Amino acid sequence: MVKYKELSEKLMQQINADIWRVGDKLPSLREQTARTGVSLMTVMHAYEVLEEQGWILSRPQSGYYVAPRTAFLRAPRQQPRMTLIGTVDVNASIFALLRATGDPAVVPFGSAFPDPSLAPLRQLSRSLTAVAREITSDQLLEHLPPGNFALRSAIAKRYAMQGIHIPPEEIVITAGALESLNLSLQAATQPGDWVVIENPCFYGALQAIEKLKLRAIAITSDPRLGIDLAALEEALASKPVKACWLMTNSHNPLGCTLADEKKQQVVALLEKYGVTLIEDDVYSELYFGSVKPKPALAYRRESGVMHCCSFSKSLVAGFRIGWVAAGRYAEEIEKLQLMSTISTSVPMQLTLAKYLSTQRYDSHLKQLRRTLEQRKIAAWRCLKRYLPSSVRINYSDSGYFLWIELPKQIDAGELSQIMLDNKVSIAPGKMFSTGNNYNHYFRINTSYEWRKREEEAVIMLAAVIDMLMGRV
Amino acid sequence: MVKYKELSEKLMQQINADIWRVGDKLPSLREQTARTGVSLMTVMHAYEVLEEQGWILSRPQSGYYVAPRTAFLRAPRQQPRMTLIGTVDVNASIFALLRATGDPAVVPFGSAFPDPSLAPLRQLSRSLTAVAREITSDQLLEHLPPGNFALRSAIAKRYAMQGIHIPPEEIVITAGALESLNLSLQAATQPGDWVVIENPCFYGALQAIEKLKLRAIAITSDPRLGIDLAALEEALASKPVKACWLMTNSHNPLGCTLADEKKQQVVALLEKYGVTLIEDDVYSELYFGSVKPKPALAYRRESGVMHCCSFSKSLVAGFRIGWVAAGRYAEEIEKLQLMSTISTSVPMQLTLAKYLSTQRYDSHLKQLRRTLEQRKIAAWRCLKRYLPSSVRINYSDSGYFLWIELPKQIDAGELSQIMLDNKVSIAPGKMFSTGNNYNHYFRINTSYEWRKREEEAVIMLAAVIDMLMGRV
Repeated sequence: MVKYKELSEKLMQQINADIWRVGDKLPSLREQTARTGVSLMTVMHAYEVLEEQGWILSRPQSGYYVAPRTAFLRAPRQQPRMTLIGTVDVNASIFALLRATGDPAVVPFGSAFPDPSLAPLRQLSRSLTAVAREITSDQLLEHLPPGNFALRSAIAKRYAMQGIHIPPEEIVITAGALESLNLSLQAATQPGDWVVIENPCFYGALQAIEKLKLRAIAITSDPRLGIDLAALEEALASKPVKACWLMTNSHNPLGCTLADEKKQQVVALLEKYGVTLIEDDVYSELYFGSVKPKPALAYRRESGVMHCCSFSKSLVAGFRIGWVAAGRYAEEIEKLQLMSTISTSVPMQLTLAKYLSTQRYDSHLKQLRRTLEQRKIAAWRCLKRYLPSSVRINYSDSGYFLWIELPKQIDAGELSQIMLDNKVSIAPGKMFSTGNNYNHYFRINTSYEWRKREEEAVIMLAAVIDMLMGRV
Repeated sequence: MVKYKELSEKLMQQINADIWRVGDKLPSLREQTARTGVSLMTVMHAYEVLEEQGWILSRPQSGYYVAPRTAFLRAPRQQPRMTLIGTVDVNASIFALLRATGDPAVVPFGSAFPDPSLAPLRQLSRSLTAVAREITSDQLLEHLPPGNFALRSAIAKRYAMQGIHIPPEEIVITAGALESLNLSLQAATQPGDWVVIENPCFYGALQAIEKLKLRAIAITSDPRLGIDLAALEEALASKPVKACWLMTNSHNPLGCTLADEKKQQVVALLEKYGVTLIEDDVYSELYFGSVKPKPALAYRRESGVMHCCSFSKSLVAGFRIGWVAAGRYAEEIEKLQLMSTISTSVPMQLTLAKYLSTQRYDSHLKQLRRTLEQRKIAAWRCLKRYLPSSVRINYSDSGYFLWIELPKQIDAGELSQIMLDNKVSIAPGKMFSTGNNYNHYFRINTSYEWRKREEEAVIMLAAVIDMLMGRV
């Protein structure tokens, strides 16, 4: 673990253990440096992370203090806990933005995909070459759902390593997690049904709900704590909800990861109301801590959880291979896939099975997490440096998104449009919500190396925000 | 062109030119052999084809006579021309059958896919290896709709070779034609809309209609002549139809290819009523004649045709690459794809672009057509030899399906079940229709080499049909 991280985690544990209590003044930067033997930079860094995460407060000319619990566990501010949406209408601008992120001339802060140069291209190419050499015509016919058995077994083994028993028969290979999520939602609902989603949430959920003509209840999620359990229960009690689409780890766009206990509570609550959980867990491998967080799937007592994952964020996006551990819905998912895309390509499935058999995935992941964390911190520092202090940057300890809150009067959609005209994309909050609560938020992709181009883009971003603030 | 084919086509032209008139006795087999210098087998073969296609009749102990025009151009028998279906409910047995065809222990007469050993595996593997060597991480990000530009350009060039101008911008790469067809139908309709389909038709159309909650009017199509234009116009006049899903070349399951004039008439009729044509043209490359039949797309005067194709039937199924030439719907299709599967895999798109650039596709196709024709004739001869004479085999001059009509009292669904218990699949007519008109039909896949195993399967098929006939 990088050193600043070690330190910040140690301090968190100490705060949790009441070694440092609310209001206590922490050792100054210099004292801490002397105590721990690490560099001043490292300490500064650790304190910055703690401050950003709400554990401590800095008082100018005074020092650092343990923050009140309520600040840390604060409830969502000025936002309704639950919104009845009825049918969802998704803004067409999402499409324009997604297409813009494919343009190499645009600084891809708005992109949803990790920097493609993070893919272990040489190893993947080696696996692809081996498949090209070995593939037989009989294998070409093995392209029907649920997909290649070796690949499903390798995925089942990875679940087993986390202590979760998933037989390969319940796993269906799909064209990335988006196909998994769409098929899962389709399997669990009929047009007109009610589903629960989070607010804000991955725009794919909003699009799927619109496409399938479902009605949605959006539950406000907190950037630190995730979904509001009381609001969830209220929703389940008020409507005949069929399914709940949730991101439990490294939430997009918020960044938060639910505590294990909370995952357990969510599953229990959904099971109590007989509601199917569609768990979007595409960033599960991108944790920065020392232990991989479990999915809510791990806490199911019934078979009504569909756990949707892919290799797109953690290995390579362009292969388009994901899966769903679909429990009792597995056969229904296969049928739906047979009716829509039939399957994913055989050579791609074989290549991933081959790659996983080389045992290099875990060392790749280790390196990837480290790089992503370094880049996220670099991005965060750069943003902290240039953006006005009234802009709040929500740091999270996984993935490659930062969720940024502007002063309320600024429209991030307008900011996004101005930035895009200047060849920088950002993902405005409106993309992730059906209401107007997040119009002054945006999401930044931090997976790219933070160089001159990125720094200049941030300087421009700061200037445009200043301009918009000055105007209002 | 194979010799029997040359002869049968010459005779067809002569009959069309009234050199041989209705009722004329053709030269006997021996006379024809002497005249043309080809072998007796070749002449027998040519006559068999002509008889099967309804051009001539054989009278036992007498010889071959030119058949009356009415027999050849006969109207659909005892079947309503048009059926209002309302919402479609697809039988779940399709799923069971599709899965059974993936079992190597089952003789795959019921399969929808061509024999995978017909794929030019060595060449494809070479292209795949080259892609593995050359692929860059930047390319991995080029996985957004509409898909790889080189591949779309290569497809546009193939249209141009047929005299059809399609800019690459109107082409969207998809996970096989099934995704094209589903996205096209989705782009052109809203739940509750009316669409026109054929009866019988590809079961994928029935499933898509069910999934999208559309209402369908099924127009009876004739095994030789295809869709009934009068019934089509009646349907368009009676309901606010939004789209028409049609197979124009090598119809599945019928086998027929619409005449150019008829394609033109269909397009004109649909344009008159402002109805979008969704043209399923997946077998377009599998013609046995000397000229590739045009798609109806070639006759459009407006941009309301979506032409759906793939490489699955003509090159390789397991790569899962198809496309749609989507006209004015291109952007809508891209949006729908972004919401469902995002795209097909980059390495597969690159591999196909690479393969097409080797210029080997056309020589592969030439060889493939020849093999498919030989196998289809072998299958047809074998079936003619063993099946009771009351079974009618509809031969068609393209593709790899034979559409077979049993005596009306026999249930092909029951036949299918008995055969499947004996490790032989067939595709019963019920799969291709929402009514009961085709319960005594089934479809046979003739793309496999016709060897002992296949002959034995046909002998068993004949025995079971005999049994079912004796019982009723």
